[in-house]
Amino acid sequence: MCKGFKAAGIAAGIKKNGNKDLGLIFSEKPATTAAVFTKNAVKAAPVIIDMERIKSGVCQAVIANSGNANCCTGKQGLADACAMTASAASALGISEDLVMAASTGVIGEPFPVDKITAHTQALASALCEDGFSDFVSAIMTTDTVPKRVTKTGEIQGVSFCVTGVAKGSGMIRPDMATMLCFVCTDIGISHEDLKKALVRANEKSFNRITVDGDMSTNDTVIVMANDASGAKVKTDADFSIFSALLDDMLFQLAKMIVVDGEGATKCATIIVNNAASEGDARNAADAVANSSLVKTALFGQDPNWGRIMAALGRSGAVFDPDRVNVFFNAEQMVISGMNAGKAAESRVAEILKQPEFDINIDLNAGSGNASVLTCDLSYEYIRINADYRS
Amino acid sequence: MCKGFKAAGIAAGIKKNGNKDLGLIFSEKPATTAAVFTKNAVKAAPVIIDMERIKSGVCQAVIANSGNANCCTGKQGLADACAMTASAASALGISEDLVMAASTGVIGEPFPVDKITAHTQALASALCEDGFSDFVSAIMTTDTVPKRVTKTGEIQGVSFCVTGVAKGSGMIRPDMATMLCFVCTDIGISHEDLKKALVRANEKSFNRITVDGDMSTNDTVIVMANDASGAKVKTDADFSIFSALLDDMLFQLAKMIVVDGEGATKCATIIVNNAASEGDARNAADAVANSSLVKTALFGQDPNWGRIMAALGRSGAVFDPDRVNVFFNAEQMVISGMNAGKAAESRVAEILKQPEFDINIDLNAGSGNASVLTCDLSYEYIRINADYRS
Repeated sequence: MCKGFKAAGIAAGIKKNGNKDLGLIFSEKPATTAAVFTKNAVKAAPVIIDMERIKSGVCQAVIANSGNANCCTGKQGLADACAMTASAASALGISEDLVMAASTGVIGEPFPVDKITAHTQALASALCEDGFSDFVSAIMTTDTVPKRVTKTGEIQGVSFCVTGVAKGSGMIRPDMATMLCFVCTDIGISHEDLKKALVRANEKSFNRITVDGDMSTNDTVIVMANDASGAKVKTDADFSIFSALLDDMLFQLAKMIVVDGEGATKCATIIVNNAASEGDARNAADAVANSSLVKTALFGQDPNWGRIMAALGRSGAVFDPDRVNVFFNAEQMVISGMNAGKAAESRVAEILKQPEFDINIDLNAGSGNASVLTCDLSYEYIRINADYRS
Repeated sequence: MCKGFKAAGIAAGIKKNGNKDLGLIFSEKPATTAAVFTKNAVKAAPVIIDMERIKSGVCQAVIANSGNANCCTGKQGLADACAMTASAASALGISEDLVMAASTGVIGEPFPVDKITAHTQALASALCEDGFSDFVSAIMTTDTVPKRVTKTGEIQGVSFCVTGVAKGSGMIRPDMATMLCFVCTDIGISHEDLKKALVRANEKSFNRITVDGDMSTNDTVIVMANDASGAKVKTDADFSIFSALLDDMLFQLAKMIVVDGEGATKCATIIVNNAASEGDARNAADAVANSSLVKTALFGQDPNWGRIMAALGRSGAVFDPDRVNVFFNAEQMVISGMNAGKAAESRVAEILKQPEFDINIDLNAGSGNASVLTCDLSYEYIRINADYRS
């Protein structure tokens, strides 16, 4: 467990089903903090508040709720987000400026701030070192599993801990961060280094996953480092140790989101190699990863690689269709833009029965590479999203 | 019926279920012809052949099959497409250069050219003036209804006819034309005017619809004008008469494709007004029209307008969320970026029970306008596309 952090999660009556819906993370002393937020032009009120507060680079607590996104709620929503943080600050006996907020749930409903402020005292009283599992429960919406990863490292003989929690299942095609993720570490690190490590890890994790191609209005990733362990990042080597560990953690959390994607039965890594440019590689991978026809074929366990070719062709990437090779894991399905035959198709059909596999695409057009994690598109996705608010 | 045209459709054994799968359109004399094709970088063999032949501006016959797209089939696919047109030309006793080809169906399977060449003589023998309904049947894949529109006009007291047929249901997000559409008219018109009228009509119809955001490799629209009626386009006024009629026809056919979109239960016109630019308006309308979350909400008849806001926010369009107004038909659901209230929501829920409605979005950011037709995303879409090849 990371030293000097406590967490809690309780039911405040925001969710109709009575489940936990209000969470709090608290650092015993103010922590160096970095964050990244959604690039969606429509931003939730807590995102707008947090983008101001993060400028100080210091934070001591995060209060988060599920069941309501506090988005498209106008000036009242901003006032409510401030009231939420003020109430938490008061319960904790710290300055409001040291509290960040996050919300997730339905967009555009009036924000039930009274339910939150009525429960912040109980929430603060529930804080404990083992409270992270309650906190994760409190930020889940359509998630079916809690997402939490803890890792330990060592710098100059002193051990440190990083623990991260995330929520996300639908509205996943981040252009920065996915839904909510909070990382606590007891390492000592400068704000600049923390931000650098976060941006790098985020780019390789949350920015490379998709579930349904829809970008949230509430995406938030916050990393708090409270220097309670005694391990300190001083040299480039120290930074590398911490940064690699954060990379691994965010990638694991991001992958958990795809595996738990709404209605998902498959997790596929779309890898595009040898594109004309890195931008082309990303566009090609994204087009395949977000194609409804590719995703329904994955659900149907059908090696319908023609849909992959069609998606590549509309991606904007420059390539010669007759030079494209496509592999499912190590099994080649497309040779020089054409069918590798019935035997290959049978072997690929077996691979598609597995819950996880890679789709390797070689464009033979240059040296640009990119990958993205995606899931399939199932009946269950329709059920979840046709009925989401009812 | 348009003078001087005949058509036919027969079963050649390409479709597993024995349905009609091979069609022919024939003009008694060579017709002035214009065409537009998919911009997908992966192009089917018949598209590659047709793009060469259309340069002459003249065509006398179109042979089209369903059940196999002849795409990602390499040099053999090109040879097969040529064999298909040569066989039709031979059966018709005309030059191969005057025959265009079109294919639709699964991508990447070997093309069953032998089944086609074995049936071209029977196909030519079946040609008749009433053969267009058989032809339409022969080009259907997941379409549940045939799509055919006939209109008549008059120029300088001489009447003319235009008849158009189309197929398309999935893989619909044209960046040029959607799937297959063939238009025959007995008007007399120059190639330049015909091309101008086609590009204009296409831009306002097939280029403004989406079903699933996936662009076909086989999109083809061909218009043949054989000058058999005696009505001739000579003046700007004549051109306007023909062009307006073609606009109407292609829009009707395009709308039929959306209404018959795979699994569709709703047809929505997404209208974006007062965007900062026309490009912004198109991007905003496309983002909403292709959002899986918006489309599942439409299927669920849920006025979940927050998903519309989230899609607008990721569209790249520049606007102030607090100035956005959204209407379902004439019912305002979003006022200045916020919920118009429970009463409005109830009224919008009633509108969503209808099979067709408009979603009007006012960005209040400029004077750019655009609209796009879309459908909902249902269980049936998943069923169709998970099982498509089995």
